[in-house]
Amino acid sequence: MRQTTDPLARLRAAADDRRAAGLRRALRPRTPDDDGLLDLASNDYLGLARDGRLAEAAVAATRLWGTGSTGSRLVTGSTELHARLEEALCAFAGAEGALVFSSGYLANLAAVAALGSGGLVVSDAGNHASIVDACRLSRSRVVVTPHGDASAVEKALAGRSEEHAVVVTDAVFSVDGDLAPLARLHEAAVRHGALLVVDEAHALGVVGPGGRGAVYAAGLAGERTVVRTVTLSKALGSQGGAVLGAREVVETLVDTGRPFIFDTGLAPGSVAAALAAVDILLHQPELPGRVRTRAGELAALARELGLETREPAGAVVPVVLGRPETALRAAAICAEHGVRAGCFRPPSVPVGRSCLRLTARANLSSDDLAVTRSALTAVAEMKVGM
Amino acid sequence: MRQTTDPLARLRAAADDRRAAGLRRALRPRTPDDDGLLDLASNDYLGLARDGRLAEAAVAATRLWGTGSTGSRLVTGSTELHARLEEALCAFAGAEGALVFSSGYLANLAAVAALGSGGLVVSDAGNHASIVDACRLSRSRVVVTPHGDASAVEKALAGRSEEHAVVVTDAVFSVDGDLAPLARLHEAAVRHGALLVVDEAHALGVVGPGGRGAVYAAGLAGERTVVRTVTLSKALGSQGGAVLGAREVVETLVDTGRPFIFDTGLAPGSVAAALAAVDILLHQPELPGRVRTRAGELAALARELGLETREPAGAVVPVVLGRPETALRAAAICAEHGVRAGCFRPPSVPVGRSCLRLTARANLSSDDLAVTRSALTAVAEMKVGM
Ligand SMILES: Cc1ncc(COP(=O)(O)O)c(C=O)c1O
Ligand SMILES: Cc1ncc(COP(=O)(O)O)c(C=O)c1O
Repeated sequence: MRQTTDPLARLRAAADDRRAAGLRRALRPRTPDDDGLLDLASNDYLGLARDGRLAEAAVAATRLWGTGSTGSRLVTGSTELHARLEEALCAFAGAEGALVFSSGYLANLAAVAALGSGGLVVSDAGNHASIVDACRLSRSRVVVTPHGDASAVEKALAGRSEEHAVVVTDAVFSVDGDLAPLARLHEAAVRHGALLVVDEAHALGVVGPGGRGAVYAAGLAGERTVVRTVTLSKALGSQGGAVLGAREVVETLVDTGRPFIFDTGLAPGSVAAALAAVDILLHQPELPGRVRTRAGELAALARELGLETREPAGAVVPVVLGRPETALRAAAICAEHGVRAGCFRPPSVPVGRSCLRLTARANLSSDDLAVTRSALTAVAEMKVGM
Repeated sequence: MRQTTDPLARLRAAADDRRAAGLRRALRPRTPDDDGLLDLASNDYLGLARDGRLAEAAVAATRLWGTGSTGSRLVTGSTELHARLEEALCAFAGAEGALVFSSGYLANLAAVAALGSGGLVVSDAGNHASIVDACRLSRSRVVVTPHGDASAVEKALAGRSEEHAVVVTDAVFSVDGDLAPLARLHEAAVRHGALLVVDEAHALGVVGPGGRGAVYAAGLAGERTVVRTVTLSKALGSQGGAVLGAREVVETLVDTGRPFIFDTGLAPGSVAAALAAVDILLHQPELPGRVRTRAGELAALARELGLETREPAGAVVPVVLGRPETALRAAAICAEHGVRAGCFRPPSVPVGRSCLRLTARANLSSDDLAVTRSALTAVAEMKVGM
């Protein structure tokens, strides 16, 4: 017979296990100046989250439209501002239609679940948690293929019995920072009548001409069977997400996308900030190239110091350290040297692959790089000394 | 052998089916004054979304902190402002701990999935879509109990073989507007060692003393095995969500809640707006009573006109009409009379239960009620004429 225990005692025991494994986490609220640390941890790739142009756009929208959208976008949560952002995203990224969500997370859940439902979903092993959750929600058969392996995707599509299928991948992977083989994935999808869903979270504003993303860079923006999800919370410096795709895709999400129908629309201020960011990208098309250059410099620095990293496709530069404790120690060393670095441990990365995640920003100065050099030098010395 | 078809053709065919069933939806972006319509459709129950105090709080926070939180709350996305909102929610609702999310949808996904994982989840048949999705994500055995049936919940808990269990319910149901039997659910949960998760989305700011919610009203705020999820996007006039619960619950979500760990933190402006709303509730504790009175008046009006409704527990007043076409027609009639009413059709409601969903606001005037009377009179006449 089952024993009835205190449900909180179970949670405490699980927390003790995580502590012993070096997997407890603590929230450390930032001050407005981030305690004077150099930010190499955020996803604010273009440095727009603190840009006055975005702030004043958000201010004006908040005063005109209010602080909340007041309902589902199907009821009262759609404003003319949401429609304007959707048009701007379409024009910028060369998409037929766009639909704005309150987060990139929910955009992924809706896109994969609504488009994949009842069929086959083929998902890269390195995909973001929101895509993994989306696969679970889709009530489809899910095949997880080895990271970056287009042949495995082709094989999964060819061998299926389901009528319809969706292939889903990050464009730039969120921790490793590498690029998906989009052209080959697209060929496989076309050959086997599947939709290709590409999450441009870390590519929009960073990769491709003027930051138009990896799908655009691969010449696939006009392909009607390619669906893109984006987030407004990284390079665009705001909050929210969107799905870009053919008219049929947008209509399907409006009618059946549960995290669209049953969620409050994005706050007007966040809509306006993202709109201002797209406008800045149109007028400063050199920004994305600058962040990629900075990322290349960070990776070169890590390599020079003997740290394990990889050539970045966008702004994300991992420094792989192995055990959770080593990654925590490295992050602490960075902080002592005035650098805020992301510290990634399981479940955010596979076991044995705990790492620092450095992110480049378009507005990093050469002084910033000098500070980073001294921090990473100390990390490399710690690693050698272990 | 499987036939390869155009994946967009499949979506078009499905859209045609939905059109034939009266289930197509269209986005109708609002103008700043909502085309002059009287809003009986939003979830802005206290009329705070357009309140200057919230707007100016959001403005100041946006200028100080930026337009985005720039990362996961575990990396760079936690600010002192987020911590302040968590403290304010705890103090207001009498909770031990709180954790802010970018939406109420994601708060539900995280709470139910992280707390229920690998056990039994018992979920009311009338629960919100975000809870239904959370159940699917939880990888638990899920038992759906008849709406409002505490004995069925008790039976499911008693008969389980799983060590741990979670009972989850809306406090005020999102379309029917009725109240869950919280005291009896809590008794059952305690007797069988389960956590009780209550979604206060439509109760916070509306139900209970000063709007402290249904759990507080039931005397359960101090119970450590009761977990509350709330949204900042309805009575609080902003965007975002939160989980309120014991220290162990918050720690579990920080360490293992995927939609917490892998999502960008709530935008500072939205955090500040919600904080201002909590402050307003503290200083104007009469507001929630006012919205409940208005809701009672709307329901009385509908009943008087022979329309099917139910006694509201909060702000939500359904007017059940049956077929999707009838509900659409009724919403159009309301609009002709200057009233914006929510129109709910499957999958938002069960088949055969398409309805208008009227929502009361604290600041509805007697003129507003007169306009509503003429609109609902026309709806009742249409219904009789069918
Ligand atoms: C690849 C990827 N997709 C989606 C998301 C979710 O986007 P958001 O934070 O806007 O919800 C993230 C990160 O947060 C991400 O890294
Ligand atoms: C009962 C209930 N829970 C959760 C949510 C989701 O909250 P949010 O819109 O803040 O994501 C909603 C409505 O949107 C709701 O009605």
